[in-house]
Amino acid sequence: MAGTDSTQESLASGAGPAIILVRPQLGENIGASARAMLNCGLTDLRIVNPRDGWPSPQAVRASSGADVVIENARIYDSTEAAIAGLERVFATSARPRDMVKPVMTPEGAAREIRKVEAEGSRCGVLFGAERMGLENEDVVLADTLIEAPLNPAYKSLNLAQAVLLVSWSWFRLADETPETRLELGATRPATKDELLNFFTRLEDKLIESNFLYPEKKRPAMIRNIRNMFQRMQPTEQDLRTLHGIVVSLYKFRGK
Amino acid sequence: MAGTDSTQESLASGAGPAIILVRPQLGENIGASARAMLNCGLTDLRIVNPRDGWPSPQAVRASSGADVVIENARIYDSTEAAIAGLERVFATSARPRDMVKPVMTPEGAAREIRKVEAEGSRCGVLFGAERMGLENEDVVLADTLIEAPLNPAYKSLNLAQAVLLVSWSWFRLADETPETRLELGATRPATKDELLNFFTRLEDKLIESNFLYPEKKRPAMIRNIRNMFQRMQPTEQDLRTLHGIVVSLYKFRGK
Repeated sequence: MAGTDSTQESLASGAGPAIILVRPQLGENIGASARAMLNCGLTDLRIVNPRDGWPSPQAVRASSGADVVIENARIYDSTEAAIAGLERVFATSARPRDMVKPVMTPEGAAREIRKVEAEGSRCGVLFGAERMGLENEDVVLADTLIEAPLNPAYKSLNLAQAVLLVSWSWFRLADETPETRLELGATRPATKDELLNFFTRLEDKLIESNFLYPEKKRPAMIRNIRNMFQRMQPTEQDLRTLHGIVVSLYKFRGK
Repeated sequence: MAGTDSTQESLASGAGPAIILVRPQLGENIGASARAMLNCGLTDLRIVNPRDGWPSPQAVRASSGADVVIENARIYDSTEAAIAGLERVFATSARPRDMVKPVMTPEGAAREIRKVEAEGSRCGVLFGAERMGLENEDVVLADTLIEAPLNPAYKSLNLAQAVLLVSWSWFRLADETPETRLELGATRPATKDELLNFFTRLEDKLIESNFLYPEKKRPAMIRNIRNMFQRMQPTEQDLRTLHGIVVSLYKFRGK
């Protein structure tokens, strides 16, 4: 699949933006950020002055197998040092800054990063500390702000969640997995309790009529039967028909 | 803004899929999931048999202010009970199942959920436990699988990260924030006559201070300088600052 090929090419080439955590507080959040990154094929983690020191056993534990990211993380004593050598820097921010600066959604920034990378330049994304985010002195180092449009009444991603949204947006652009669609039934879809009610009746009748044997195979048989009918996406009318079929067959058994 | 209006309408109406955590282990992960949900305007949290009991102080703490979601969470003793009354159920899965079932990306599922909701039906999304995900007995209850296309070499989202990707994909579809905008704060973009006025002053001073020589190169030098400042897209406030810089440097020449 084309999407998978280009994805693996990206992974092999070490492409993608550097993720730069500025003065993060908890090792757990650094580890969870590394985990979010690697899920999206990003491996260049840079950390400016981690509060609790480095290396961090908490970070390793929370990375949950994304060791390669934690082991190769680079530590810096200033944001300036962490971004030296990059051509384009983005800063994530949940609150407005009194600065004239372009603001992009995660998707818009992802598109821009891909474009800059295709031109042979390297990008980085700054993330602030858990409590207060980036300071203005960090934000001013960036060319562009990234702001995720979130619930206006509650904007409070944790650090790794913010890293995930940016990483995911970047990763998605190289993926060509099709969005599958389902067809809808013509009438009212059955509710789950209506469906489960049908399953129960069917299975009762199938036990009585000696279909669900041997007993040790019964769970797998039931699973297959349930799955088969589930795939049908029955309407409420369909279920009434199916009830009728089961009752009718059951009554006529052996006659 | 239309996006914000429809977002707030969604929030008010309690729309959006139910997020159903099946046998989650750690309160922290339940809290972080609630936090991810509320960022994306989702509030209907259902939990099937939380391992460490309920209520959970760990969940409240990790929800980081998303209390409304935790307080209104409903607890069930079976997945069947948790989905009763819903018309469409999705199950998230990171691994292939031996079942014939449609699989969607988070974006595809989000679009499907919006469509089903627009037809007046309610949806839910099942998430499995931290270690092993959903059991087949849970998956079979769902109409559709959701699988996030992730790094083929490392697919390991934590529970709240998986909740975030699904919630975010749903939320994004109601948002109309432009991919790029210029944050202006209190100022406004400079008009072209203000910009040309600055160019004229700058060039006058550069001629006086012997920068724009030899004369035959002057037109090209001026073009480059104008183009450079033009790319800055200066605001009216920026231009006043630039005027000040030029005057200040000019006055100090040779002293």
